[in-house]
Amino acid sequence: MNILVTLDANYIKPLKVALKSLFLNNRDEMFTIYLMHSSLKQTELDDLSRFIQEHGSMLRPIYVADDYFLDAPAQSYYTKEMYYRLLAFKFLPESLDRILYLDPDILVINPVRELYETDLKGYLYAAAYHDKISVKEVNKIRLTPYNIDAYYNSGVLLMNLEEQRQHIDEQTIYQFVEKNRARLIMPDQDVLNALYSKKIKSLDEMLYNYDTRFYSHYKIKSNGICDMDYIIHHTVILHFCGRKKPWKKRYSGKFHALYKHYEKLALA
Amino acid sequence: MNILVTLDANYIKPLKVALKSLFLNNRDEMFTIYLMHSSLKQTELDDLSRFIQEHGSMLRPIYVADDYFLDAPAQSYYTKEMYYRLLAFKFLPESLDRILYLDPDILVINPVRELYETDLKGYLYAAAYHDKISVKEVNKIRLTPYNIDAYYNSGVLLMNLEEQRQHIDEQTIYQFVEKNRARLIMPDQDVLNALYSKKIKSLDEMLYNYDTRFYSHYKIKSNGICDMDYIIHHTVILHFCGRKKPWKKRYSGKFHALYKHYEKLALA
Repeated sequence: MNILVTLDANYIKPLKVALKSLFLNNRDEMFTIYLMHSSLKQTELDDLSRFIQEHGSMLRPIYVADDYFLDAPAQSYYTKEMYYRLLAFKFLPESLDRILYLDPDILVINPVRELYETDLKGYLYAAAYHDKISVKEVNKIRLTPYNIDAYYNSGVLLMNLEEQRQHIDEQTIYQFVEKNRARLIMPDQDVLNALYSKKIKSLDEMLYNYDTRFYSHYKIKSNGICDMDYIIHHTVILHFCGRKKPWKKRYSGKFHALYKHYEKLALA
Repeated sequence: MNILVTLDANYIKPLKVALKSLFLNNRDEMFTIYLMHSSLKQTELDDLSRFIQEHGSMLRPIYVADDYFLDAPAQSYYTKEMYYRLLAFKFLPESLDRILYLDPDILVINPVRELYETDLKGYLYAAAYHDKISVKEVNKIRLTPYNIDAYYNSGVLLMNLEEQRQHIDEQTIYQFVEKNRARLIMPDQDVLNALYSKKIKSLDEMLYNYDTRFYSHYKIKSNGICDMDYIIHHTVILHFCGRKKPWKKRYSGKFHALYKHYEKLALA
């Protein structure tokens, strides 16, 4: 299976934790991890590569030259890395038909095969949106007039690379960013939603992009089905959304102990 | 290493979870699990034995005949199993000099070697007491006039079998229970504390008998040192004390996800 990650040096440790959980819960699979970056050192890449090989998988670094997005709009807090995920198809081998993009602030706690094989016919992506009124409505209003039905989270993104090569255009993205500078908050996620919302296949967030901040919300919404037992047995991807991260001091949350457990295994 | 557990059929699943965590976090060790019971079926024993052998360790069942404690005082809610832990030394091979008793409602999340090798010279046991005012004081008052300094928790009990063979007397225990019927709440733990408190070596509860209900208490008491990171890297035994158990519906707590994780691995 092909996995895509994009990274700067600050996220190497969380990435290892995420990958460790992926490997441990998918022991019979072999992964090729494509890593888009512009600033990692060779020693960092070597270390990551060794780590991945020890688990029977492979690292394929993709260096993105500093000047690649030179003509793309950017400003202080949108770094050019925001375009990596949107334009990954341009950097990946032509032979790939699909890839699963993963944020580093996740744990993969069950097999990903079924997610990976989601039928993507006619779609550019598959993703989940977080169906919490507060999250959904704020973003819909913010991105009016783009008329989105749902605001998808771009932390777990299954990509139909064949469709993307035909239908996603660099200049359209740049123009959108240029025009909407003032209202973009999470730039790549905003672009994804404003421009491609209609071409995103909807995934079950409780299975594939479980927002770890909202245990009670999910449990209530599912009439009690989505409890801890269900999550541990069925949820594939836990996503530690939000500013507070489980690898930082002072974090607190339902999945803190579990995260630290995988962290210990990954960084031992 | 020798491990002692005592069990009825209701606790087979939690026991497997506890043992799984012990095995996974002590991969280079070989354990002999002594299991005192009076009611397990042969199929249950065979299943447990297979499970333990798959992890490179051994089960040694010790059947305790129904009539063994016939002359011991008991009543509705003190079953005769209460004496198993106190009189285990009578049932174990003479060749053993020490054994680690473990309750089934625990997780072992780090190596136990250091605990197992605690110097027990002059002591009958090593155990931890829960240094929370509420727990400590109530039990001290309750067990006046036995004048105990600390109320030890008997869920994790390292036993000095050589000393016990010389100094623990069945009749003394029976007499104590007979005399104090009315005030015994947790009978074996009460006996242990009232009769043998002075001969118990004190263990660090944050390392060897971490009461999972009291995360904040431990964190404050330790000036912030005993946080989740510390626990996952240093605590050896998490003890799910109290009536609410992590394998039951409606449980909620800091270590819920971690427990369910080990449960999945154990019962898969």
